[in-house]
Amino acid sequence: MSSSGSTSNEQASSSPRTVAQVGEFDVIARSLVGRIQPLTTELGPGDDAAIVTAPDGRVVISSDMLVEGRHFRLDWSPPRDVGRKAVAQNAADIVSMGARPSAFTVSLGCPPSTPIDVMDEISAGIWDAATDLGAGIVGGDLVQSQDIVVSVTVLGDLGGRRAVTRAGAQVGDRVAVAGLFGCSAAGLALLLAGDRSFPDLLALHRVPVPPYESAWAAADTAHSMTDISDGVVADLRHLASASGVQVRIDSGAVPTSADVPKAAAALKLDPLEWILSGGEDHGFAATFAAGEDLPSGWTVIGEVVAGAGVVVDGELRESGGGWHSFSATGTTAV
Amino acid sequence: MSSSGSTSNEQASSSPRTVAQVGEFDVIARSLVGRIQPLTTELGPGDDAAIVTAPDGRVVISSDMLVEGRHFRLDWSPPRDVGRKAVAQNAADIVSMGARPSAFTVSLGCPPSTPIDVMDEISAGIWDAATDLGAGIVGGDLVQSQDIVVSVTVLGDLGGRRAVTRAGAQVGDRVAVAGLFGCSAAGLALLLAGDRSFPDLLALHRVPVPPYESAWAAADTAHSMTDISDGVVADLRHLASASGVQVRIDSGAVPTSADVPKAAAALKLDPLEWILSGGEDHGFAATFAAGEDLPSGWTVIGEVVAGAGVVVDGELRESGGGWHSFSATGTTAV
Repeated sequence: MSSSGSTSNEQASSSPRTVAQVGEFDVIARSLVGRIQPLTTELGPGDDAAIVTAPDGRVVISSDMLVEGRHFRLDWSPPRDVGRKAVAQNAADIVSMGARPSAFTVSLGCPPSTPIDVMDEISAGIWDAATDLGAGIVGGDLVQSQDIVVSVTVLGDLGGRRAVTRAGAQVGDRVAVAGLFGCSAAGLALLLAGDRSFPDLLALHRVPVPPYESAWAAADTAHSMTDISDGVVADLRHLASASGVQVRIDSGAVPTSADVPKAAAALKLDPLEWILSGGEDHGFAATFAAGEDLPSGWTVIGEVVAGAGVVVDGELRESGGGWHSFSATGTTAV
Repeated sequence: MSSSGSTSNEQASSSPRTVAQVGEFDVIARSLVGRIQPLTTELGPGDDAAIVTAPDGRVVISSDMLVEGRHFRLDWSPPRDVGRKAVAQNAADIVSMGARPSAFTVSLGCPPSTPIDVMDEISAGIWDAATDLGAGIVGGDLVQSQDIVVSVTVLGDLGGRRAVTRAGAQVGDRVAVAGLFGCSAAGLALLLAGDRSFPDLLALHRVPVPPYESAWAAADTAHSMTDISDGVVADLRHLASASGVQVRIDSGAVPTSADVPKAAAALKLDPLEWILSGGEDHGFAATFAAGEDLPSGWTVIGEVVAGAGVVVDGELRESGGGWHSFSATGTTAV
């Protein structure tokens, strides 16, 4: 209710307030001011639990946790981007089943000394990304922890369709992907090297942009589909294993950004490692019947044959090719 | 497949293995061995997301996060109890709406040096408690963090009934509670004092036992209901505020364990502070029309009148009376 001038003066004259000073209930209240819930939210935050419509009679659910220093660094990413990333990677998990997100819950942990602005901005990023998807933030928790922790659960609706799982790939299917690969890993390598010369790659590391529309377009025809969160080879290995088949791909066919080989040259690294083994791009892979027209946004990279595992350019990749939560560093491991 | 003798020898001769040694995917796989999903789990763990039935066309959802050192201490609680507590406090949030839990997701964070046995036992406790409720663990995440973090989301079904919220209390209602209060706070005070002489109170601090059946029995008739997680006074204040009424209670009517006054005498503390302001008992409070017979397990402690706030023994409690996430210590604050 105060004028913008006086508010601005108050902010300038006071030191940044912390989460401990503002308190749990007010931090939560601040995150809800001005937020609009979609029609799927029958009862939003503020009671013991929330109620979300599930017109399909089934609900699709996935949970992910991001930890400061492991999944993001606040000296590399504005806190709003951290919120956006948490929603995008969680949403991609249910969109790859063919579902549309209806609601998210978000549990946050942070040290009491965390500036309130950081938590406000993480909340804003979460709301931005959820609103873009037509979903609401319907509940959550705020607790004290040593690391900043962002724990997200997404609910989605299948609209009466069958779910597209990893288990439906059939011998003879074409393997296709949607999205660009290696960008997030390239962005991470650039940040680690202190190189800021490829802003698009840095941005794609901070906030992945899953090609949701392409996944929804594939939901009626794809035999199998998965989100590429750990890396192309690692996630195709999961799909091959779940389907009891072998996936053979041509590395040169995997779409990437024109900046990825340039960044690799600048850092004297092999771009193919990023493209095949880099995590967190959150594109999609799917398999389609050989005669099927591919939906918009999909590129064929290989085929499904009898056997097991993933073959890249004729060579079986026995292991590796993806992110490991308990590797020594937060970078991709092979 | 090996004999129990050789397995036992192998275990005896090796040092405890850590999460880093076992790896993310195997820790998750171990948590699923031998677990049986209920019929509500249409697609369980292992794909990008899970699918849970929602026959009601709505789903009730709540999320909670427990952090080591803040919500539990492994020198005070066996890790199996930590898992049970995480499920119980999360389930109580949706049972207080009248819902029955159908599924949980669990995201775990831990340091790489965490013994695998600790994570196995937390998982076992989570599964024990979920199975008791007829629900499955359908998904989650496992990541590296400084603290052990247990982040739980519960889904529930209302079975076609209206949800019982905090907002339905009416002037003239009787206020009643189900469960025993002050036990968890007493157990915490005993643990802090190094006093192990009231094992039932210690057990109720380690694992709350929400009176789920009483809450379900009240779901058809209660005007309003809430889980008592922060403390009787604090949570009744939330209910009074949501309903736009005043709640008046008689402190002597609030049910507690016979051990609570004994433990208070031993520690030279006031048992009423635990009973009125202690958190984490996870009993329930509800309001019922004056003429209504109370369901089994409920005790009248007061009445709903016009006004605002909570009045205890004739005195308005302006603030406090509950747990605060960002207070200096993990103990209850007044």
